[in-house]
Amino acid sequence: MQSAGLGIAVSLLPDTVIGQSTRSDLLHPTIKPELFSLGIASYTFRSLTLEQTIQVTKKLQISRLCLKSMHLPLDSTEEQIRQAVRKINEAELKLYAGGVITMKSISDVNQAFSYAKAAGMEMIIGVPYPDILSYTEQKIKETGIKVAIHNHGPDDNPYPSPLDAHLAVKNRDKGFGLCVDIGHTVRLGQDLIRIVNQCKDRLLDVHIKDVSAPEKAGTTVEIGRGIIDIPAFLHFMQRIKYAGTLSLEYEKDEKDPIPGSAESIGYLRGIMAVMRR
Amino acid sequence: MQSAGLGIAVSLLPDTVIGQSTRSDLLHPTIKPELFSLGIASYTFRSLTLEQTIQVTKKLQISRLCLKSMHLPLDSTEEQIRQAVRKINEAELKLYAGGVITMKSISDVNQAFSYAKAAGMEMIIGVPYPDILSYTEQKIKETGIKVAIHNHGPDDNPYPSPLDAHLAVKNRDKGFGLCVDIGHTVRLGQDLIRIVNQCKDRLLDVHIKDVSAPEKAGTTVEIGRGIIDIPAFLHFMQRIKYAGTLSLEYEKDEKDPIPGSAESIGYLRGIMAVMRR
Repeated sequence: MQSAGLGIAVSLLPDTVIGQSTRSDLLHPTIKPELFSLGIASYTFRSLTLEQTIQVTKKLQISRLCLKSMHLPLDSTEEQIRQAVRKINEAELKLYAGGVITMKSISDVNQAFSYAKAAGMEMIIGVPYPDILSYTEQKIKETGIKVAIHNHGPDDNPYPSPLDAHLAVKNRDKGFGLCVDIGHTVRLGQDLIRIVNQCKDRLLDVHIKDVSAPEKAGTTVEIGRGIIDIPAFLHFMQRIKYAGTLSLEYEKDEKDPIPGSAESIGYLRGIMAVMRR
Repeated sequence: MQSAGLGIAVSLLPDTVIGQSTRSDLLHPTIKPELFSLGIASYTFRSLTLEQTIQVTKKLQISRLCLKSMHLPLDSTEEQIRQAVRKINEAELKLYAGGVITMKSISDVNQAFSYAKAAGMEMIIGVPYPDILSYTEQKIKETGIKVAIHNHGPDDNPYPSPLDAHLAVKNRDKGFGLCVDIGHTVRLGQDLIRIVNQCKDRLLDVHIKDVSAPEKAGTTVEIGRGIIDIPAFLHFMQRIKYAGTLSLEYEKDEKDPIPGSAESIGYLRGIMAVMRR
C-alpha cells in the first residue's frame, strides 16, 4: 500500500512543509472502472414498481439489470415490453437478462425466448426442466440468446447445486451455462469456491448475496454480515478472470430493501477498491 | 489470500470429491470484531428524530453514537437528557460523544460540560474559540471529559485544518485533542495522511466521509464515490494503531440519508474485511 511508504517519509519532513501540499498524493489519481460489473437482480425490489426499481438502481450507480417477472410479466405484449425497455434505456441502464424464469414445457421455453428477444436481453436466467433441455439448446442455437441455469440450493428444484446445472449443460452448446447463486450454493453446505472452480467453463452470470448459515435454514443478510467469505470469493473470481456480471439478489427486507441493498453494494465496492489498487 | 492456494489444490481433485464437502473452508471461521469501531455522527440523520436515529443506527449494526444538538438540545434539562440517554442505552447503543458543539464564551463551555456530564459522554466534539481555550482546558482537567476540536475546512471557522486545531492543543492537557473531519481536511486541498500523521498524538475522534473534490466546492458523497482514497486512509489508521471511533458524517441527502449512509458503512466494512484477513 502507498500509505506505508508515504507515512514513513512524512515523519521525516519538517513541520513547516506539512500543510503546504495543495493536492493529496493519496487522492484517487483517476476513477478507475470497477473490477467487476455490478448488477441488480430485480427480485431484490419485488415490492417496488419497475419505475422505482429503475430509480433505485440509478441511485446505487449500477447500470445492469436482470428483470424478474413482477417488473415485466412474461405474458406481456411486444408493445408492453418495448415500453418497459424504453424506460430502462432512457435511464441509461442495460437490461442484460431476465429471470429467474422457470421453464417446464416447450411452450414455457418459447414464451421465454420470445420475451427475451423482444426485450433485447443477452441472456435468460432460467430453470429449464430436464425434459426440455434439448429443446432449450435448440432455441439457444437459433436465437443466440444464452441460457444460464440458476441453482436454488436445498429447496425444491431440479438444480440444487451449480454442479447439477453443470451436468445438464456441459455437453451442450456453449451458450448454455450457469448463473451461480452463491447464497443457495452455500446453503447446501457446499464449498463455494471449489464448486465455482469446477463449473467455471460455463459460468455466465452470478447472483451475489450473503447468508446467515451454511444450511437450508440460512437466509439472506446484508453482504458482509453473513458467513460467506466475500473477499475470498472476489479474489477467486479475479483469478479466473470472470468477465460477467455480479448481480445483487438481496432477498431480505422485502418491504424495505433499499438500505440493505445499499450496504451490500457498498461492501462489494469497498473490497473491489482494495483489490484494484 | 486463502483462495489462491485453495483454488489450485481444488483443480487437482477428482470430480467425485467435489460437492461432498459439507462445510466450506472459505466461510468466515469466526466472526471477528471489526478492525475499527464505527460510529454515527447524528448530524447525518438531522431530518430524523432521536428515536428514528436510534432505529437506523441499530439497523446499520453500529453501536456508537455522537449526538448533534437537534437530537438532544444543548439547553435540555437534566431530566430530558436522562430520558434520551435511557432510550439510547435501551437500544444497546453507546452515546460516546456530543457535537459538533460551538463554544464561543465561558457560559457556552459551562453548558457543554454540564450537558456532556449529564449524558455520561466521554467526549465533546467541539469548536472552542481561541479566547476560551484555557478555560476549556481547566474544565477538561476538572471533569475528565475530553474535548476534540473539529476542523471545518475552507468554511468560516477558527480551525480549518487539523493543524490549526493541533496548534491550539499541543501544549495543553492530553484530554484536549482533535476530531479530524477527513472531508473538510481534503476540501482544504491538504494531504490527508500527511496531516493526520502530524496530529496523531492528539487524535481522539474521526468524522469519516468522502467528498467530490479537493476544494471548497467539494461536497459529501457516498463513501467510495468521491476522491478520498479510503483504503489508503484505513491502512494508515491501522498502522498508527488508531483505537478511537470512525464516525460517519454523511451530509448528502438530508431528506433521505439512509441509502447513502448504508452504502458508506458497507464500503468501510468491505475494506476492513480485506484488511483483517
